[in-house]
Amino acid sequence: MSKKELRIGLVGYGFMGRTHSNAYKRVGDFFPDLQYRPVLKAVSARNAERLEAFAKQWGYESFETDWRKMVQRTDIDAIDICTPNDKHAEIAIAAAEAGKMVLCEKPLARTVAEAQPMVDAVEKAGVANTVWYNYRRIPAVTLAKQLIDAGKLGKIFHYRANFLQDWTISPELPQGGEGLWRLDDNAAGSGVTGDLLAHCIDTAMWLNGGIKDVSAVTETFIKERVHTASGKKQKVGIDDACIFHCHFDNGSLGLFESTRYARGHKALYTFEINGQHASIKWNLHDLNRLEYFDHRDDSLERGWRSIHVTDGDMPYMDKWWVPGLSVGYEHSFVHQMADFLQSLEENKPCSPTFREAQETQKVCEAVLASAASKSWKETGTSWPG
Amino acid sequence: MSKKELRIGLVGYGFMGRTHSNAYKRVGDFFPDLQYRPVLKAVSARNAERLEAFAKQWGYESFETDWRKMVQRTDIDAIDICTPNDKHAEIAIAAAEAGKMVLCEKPLARTVAEAQPMVDAVEKAGVANTVWYNYRRIPAVTLAKQLIDAGKLGKIFHYRANFLQDWTISPELPQGGEGLWRLDDNAAGSGVTGDLLAHCIDTAMWLNGGIKDVSAVTETFIKERVHTASGKKQKVGIDDACIFHCHFDNGSLGLFESTRYARGHKALYTFEINGQHASIKWNLHDLNRLEYFDHRDDSLERGWRSIHVTDGDMPYMDKWWVPGLSVGYEHSFVHQMADFLQSLEENKPCSPTFREAQETQKVCEAVLASAASKSWKETGTSWPG
Amino acid sequence: MSKKELRIGLVGYGFMGRTHSNAYKRVGDFFPDLQYRPVLKAVSARNAERLEAFAKQWGYESFETDWRKMVQRTDIDAIDICTPNDKHAEIAIAAAEAGKMVLCEKPLARTVAEAQPMVDAVEKAGVANTVWYNYRRIPAVTLAKQLIDAGKLGKIFHYRANFLQDWTISPELPQGGEGLWRLDDNAAGSGVTGDLLAHCIDTAMWLNGGIKDVSAVTETFIKERVHTASGKKQKVGIDDACIFHCHFDNGSLGLFESTRYARGHKALYTFEINGQHASIKWNLHDLNRLEYFDHRDDSLERGWRSIHVTDGDMPYMDKWWVPGLSVGYEHSFVHQMADFLQSLEENKPCSPTFREAQETQKVCEAVLASAASKSWKETGTSWPG
Amino acid sequence: MSKKELRIGLVGYGFMGRTHSNAYKRVGDFFPDLQYRPVLKAVSARNAERLEAFAKQWGYESFETDWRKMVQRTDIDAIDICTPNDKHAEIAIAAAEAGKMVLCEKPLARTVAEAQPMVDAVEKAGVANTVWYNYRRIPAVTLAKQLIDAGKLGKIFHYRANFLQDWTISPELPQGGEGLWRLDDNAAGSGVTGDLLAHCIDTAMWLNGGIKDVSAVTETFIKERVHTASGKKQKVGIDDACIFHCHFDNGSLGLFESTRYARGHKALYTFEINGQHASIKWNLHDLNRLEYFDHRDDSLERGWRSIHVTDGDMPYMDKWWVPGLSVGYEHSFVHQMADFLQSLEENKPCSPTFREAQETQKVCEAVLASAASKSWKETGTSWPG
Repeated sequence: MSKKELRIGLVGYGFMGRTHSNAYKRVGDFFPDLQYRPVLKAVSARNAERLEAFAKQWGYESFETDWRKMVQRTDIDAIDICTPNDKHAEIAIAAAEAGKMVLCEKPLARTVAEAQPMVDAVEKAGVANTVWYNYRRIPAVTLAKQLIDAGKLGKIFHYRANFLQDWTISPELPQGGEGLWRLDDNAAGSGVTGDLLAHCIDTAMWLNGGIKDVSAVTETFIKERVHTASGKKQKVGIDDACIFHCHFDNGSLGLFESTRYARGHKALYTFEINGQHASIKWNLHDLNRLEYFDHRDDSLERGWRSIHVTDGDMPYMDKWWVPGLSVGYEHSFVHQMADFLQSLEENKPCSPTFREAQETQKVCEAVLASAASKSWKETGTSWPG
Repeated sequence: MSKKELRIGLVGYGFMGRTHSNAYKRVGDFFPDLQYRPVLKAVSARNAERLEAFAKQWGYESFETDWRKMVQRTDIDAIDICTPNDKHAEIAIAAAEAGKMVLCEKPLARTVAEAQPMVDAVEKAGVANTVWYNYRRIPAVTLAKQLIDAGKLGKIFHYRANFLQDWTISPELPQGGEGLWRLDDNAAGSGVTGDLLAHCIDTAMWLNGGIKDVSAVTETFIKERVHTASGKKQKVGIDDACIFHCHFDNGSLGLFESTRYARGHKALYTFEINGQHASIKWNLHDLNRLEYFDHRDDSLERGWRSIHVTDGDMPYMDKWWVPGLSVGYEHSFVHQMADFLQSLEENKPCSPTFREAQETQKVCEAVLASAASKSWKETGTSWPG
Repeated sequence: MSKKELRIGLVGYGFMGRTHSNAYKRVGDFFPDLQYRPVLKAVSARNAERLEAFAKQWGYESFETDWRKMVQRTDIDAIDICTPNDKHAEIAIAAAEAGKMVLCEKPLARTVAEAQPMVDAVEKAGVANTVWYNYRRIPAVTLAKQLIDAGKLGKIFHYRANFLQDWTISPELPQGGEGLWRLDDNAAGSGVTGDLLAHCIDTAMWLNGGIKDVSAVTETFIKERVHTASGKKQKVGIDDACIFHCHFDNGSLGLFESTRYARGHKALYTFEINGQHASIKWNLHDLNRLEYFDHRDDSLERGWRSIHVTDGDMPYMDKWWVPGLSVGYEHSFVHQMADFLQSLEENKPCSPTFREAQETQKVCEAVLASAASKSWKETGTSWPG
Repeated sequence: MSKKELRIGLVGYGFMGRTHSNAYKRVGDFFPDLQYRPVLKAVSARNAERLEAFAKQWGYESFETDWRKMVQRTDIDAIDICTPNDKHAEIAIAAAEAGKMVLCEKPLARTVAEAQPMVDAVEKAGVANTVWYNYRRIPAVTLAKQLIDAGKLGKIFHYRANFLQDWTISPELPQGGEGLWRLDDNAAGSGVTGDLLAHCIDTAMWLNGGIKDVSAVTETFIKERVHTASGKKQKVGIDDACIFHCHFDNGSLGLFESTRYARGHKALYTFEINGQHASIKWNLHDLNRLEYFDHRDDSLERGWRSIHVTDGDMPYMDKWWVPGLSVGYEHSFVHQMADFLQSLEENKPCSPTFREAQETQKVCEAVLASAASKSWKETGTSWPG
């Protein structure tokens, strides 16, 4: 009764390469009942020296400086894409065509047009696929989903989310280069919209359904930055900040904001949902807590409840420690990996699939188009894809 | 060296009639150095019985069932308007023409067009005037103004505010009638925009300067309610919720939301300002606290500071108790009255004047027009009026 | 149907003189149904000039530089004692003997021995009496009492309270003199024990019943300070900090701490009560909030509830504003005055009476004796006196 | 330049067996520069079936149902003890005598007398040793240590800590048995004192120096519970709650409380330190935050700072993710393992050693003796051992 191997080929060894590698190595320790066991078969990137160091540190069996070679290897079952966004499509399509499962970092691609053949490729090949919108699998966020699905909130009136950071305020920061490709329009596709709002949109549609239309504004506070490719000051093409309001399909109003210029907030992803009977709040800086307000409580005892989501009956928490003991950011990736492996056992899709992630892409694109044209835009989404 | 009397004639005895009456009676106890002393000369309203009870409770020397009579009385120096919004203009203009000072509850009027002759009237008459945008005078909010004016934040990138309530979620609530005129479009002029966002906009322009253009959405969740006048279900004309984003004159992005459908929030007015060096947050439910983040702090000791604004060197707080001991909501009105009396001594305007309040009116109107037309609108404001 | 006058003679015009005067002036505005109406008849203190200024500021009809004279005046019904602690006994006894009602600032006296004749005097004279342990009447604290009395908590296991300040850390601060008599052992009787822990003990016994025995430690961090009387450095006789644990009569464990050397805390009075089913927390810096945890909540929705105690069905709050709008520190005194006036109508005692306050005195004395002898001490209290 | 193996033999596979195993497996991924590499050589326990499952889940190469055999194996370098407390001494001494390094779960033993030969054994054998007081290595706690050592707080006046839980309130819970040996006096040695206060004491002495004398009270709320060994109700020998105050060697006052009857608190370990210039607070439920107050801040901007301890320049945090992204409970064990491996490289002790842990043991024993005798007790400690 030994486990089946799921042989992983990872492309990219940056921040996300680390979070995914950790997920592969942790999942078996904490989810012992899974039938699949990830094996770190190979990792690929261009810089051979750093690649080798990464492979050694994390225990990858081999490495390839050309991802195309890795995609063709017969000892690999799944390709995991952790490159900058501009490489997602090419790699994903090649992997699908080679019959590999594909796991792709978010956002799926830079544009809807770029993403469409990716969706087509995985569906045509019939390979398992998922996109790492990891925040859904933070236990408190999953608990929010359970409460909503159980009807605790009643009719929803409002959904608001923001994702606030402050790491690009300095005009000295270049665009492009190690860790800074997120400032380079060509590599990233957009600024905060694809990087941060995409997370907010994925969670929002998962929790509250499709988004019908949007009205947005974007801003680029620092207009020129040195580009590391040219060594010269160039126009900055990304959005530093993006705000939009919208209508959800269920009639509720949505409000989203993201920026990298909110001094004092490192990675403050928050959302709040207001329903007829109850409301929910969450934020990433205190990720083990879910705030819940239930108007049906006796009026003298009614207040926002701060739920410390660490008990064994809470989502995923039977796998970890004991009540009161927190988990961290990286656990969300372990949970997504566990769910992916479970979906393989059950031969079911692992949400969000490429198809679902394409719907998030459509909202992002409508947001950017709305900001550019200063007008409302229909998103054309059909949720869940 | 006895004090000069400022003889008050109050119109309306509702919630605001109480807060203003309290301000008149408290100000001398806590601001003993002021040269003016308010005297509660008369109060006016239509219901004679309730009027008399109110006059007796609060110690008004007399009462009038016709405000016109009160406005003409020679033993009254200042008319204070606490009626529903649809009466503001008529009373204010009559008062100004009778040479009285005019203090008016916010919003100044239902529309810009209605407000303009009010501005003209007080300016033509040369009478002291102010509008009760009281939240500016909560000590923590005034401290925010001091920090901003001292340049602590540097260039401002973001301003966001919301005002969330949940008291109209029940469809059984009628429009119109005692305490519910705020649901009646004709009496109120608008819903949350004039009632709640007007506060947010006044504070925002005071702290961060003029608002250039806006893009808004409004929603009326409950489309029909019984009207107390007709006793029948009628279309609801007010906005239950309103969201807008905007550009400030200084280039920062603004984001505003208000609703009466945010379950769990009673009167949660919040704002946050993000600058290059520092940020500020405040909320009305914890009104004695100002949150302040300063990026110039040593990196290992850097965090949001929760300032308990109760020390003697903080705005207005030398007048009250000792460090650590809180003030409440009504103190903001006492402070505005103190500042108004001080402005009389110095023969200076007491901000916000009718002229300033008209600028807030313009933003509200642009917001409603933007929502109606689904397009961006210039506000045409010039701050500070 | 006019109101009956309650003619007040106040002794002392310091911090407490102000809070009490405010209570007398506010109570009628907000509690209109009371049959009694306080009248500020006279105030007494030694410094004639400052006394006159105070009388004028607050509207006292007259003033006396000798409190004995005021106590004998036939146009006064009640004597309110706001002097340093060393004068409480003499004044209270004289007032009772003159047939006046007596309201006394806490603590009742410096020692149990000094307090006993005060209790005897008011009881022999049969005059209404109360001690201003005002924190019981903060709405959130009163709500805590309601929840406990309704049995929500079940059997109590733990009671903990602390009162933390930081205003005497500087060794430059003298003992004695204006506003600093609290550092002078002779005037105050003790340091934090009588000043701060007395509040904690009063609330604790009111909420959780009598205290059986105590084990304490005290500390005087700064051993010598200039005395304003002698102008010389003298040994400091007060306790700067005091900690004690205890058994309540109901078997629960108590833990109390107070200090004026807790940097960062201005007047942080907190308490928490842990029962079999539910727990309660409160703190003075955020006095409008009560934290409540109920284990009977569904396990997935269980968390500390932050109750914003501002709704009309909460204690005293129908008298003030609307949900979400805070009250402040001074409201607790207004509430105590309202309850005192109500007790006169009903011819009932107004808790805490001198007799009850004497029980608090006994606990304080046992605490100081325990610290001095480094041993457990029985308190000898019988609650409620 | 391959790494040196550190071959681990683990005794016990309970909760702590899991946290330690995780630490061994994670440390190389995140601390790649360490020269030592833990190898999971063997695990030992009595139940063969469950032992095998555990070994398989975590990847131990082998397992032994007799720890004595494992201790004698020549392919093992270090014995890690995760058994109930009553087995610590025997195993540790045998391991030391066999020349193994010894890592022991806290508390070191049930009593000072039981612990002394353990200290003697590791010191006589000259083997590396450490005790898993893991909370020191939560980044926010380590940062507290840095701030204190840098002199930021100045002279310390107060140290207070508590560790509150609520998991044993039900009288139906038995003493003894799987996961419940902590309720069995014989297995655990004591109740909350050894289990929870030992953590608080270790952190306190590390941060604030030795503890001189103590005055304690304990309580056992539920006097009898079914014992799983006998199947009968037996007297409960452990302390359900323990409170003590104390003097530190540096003259500051300490206050400690622990209980398993604080409804609403799952594992709420908190501490606060008040110094002349600054104060620090921390709690385990929000373990990524350190609260810091600095009186030297400008008076208008002074407040408790909530430091989100997730930046790369903060302790251990360069090894994990990016600013704003939290770590969890188990990371503290990874950090202790990293420090242990580092100490091997440097041939230095890894604090807390057995000798230091024995000092914590002495305080615990003085606390229990003080409670039993209702008197102050000297601890006899010399910190750091």
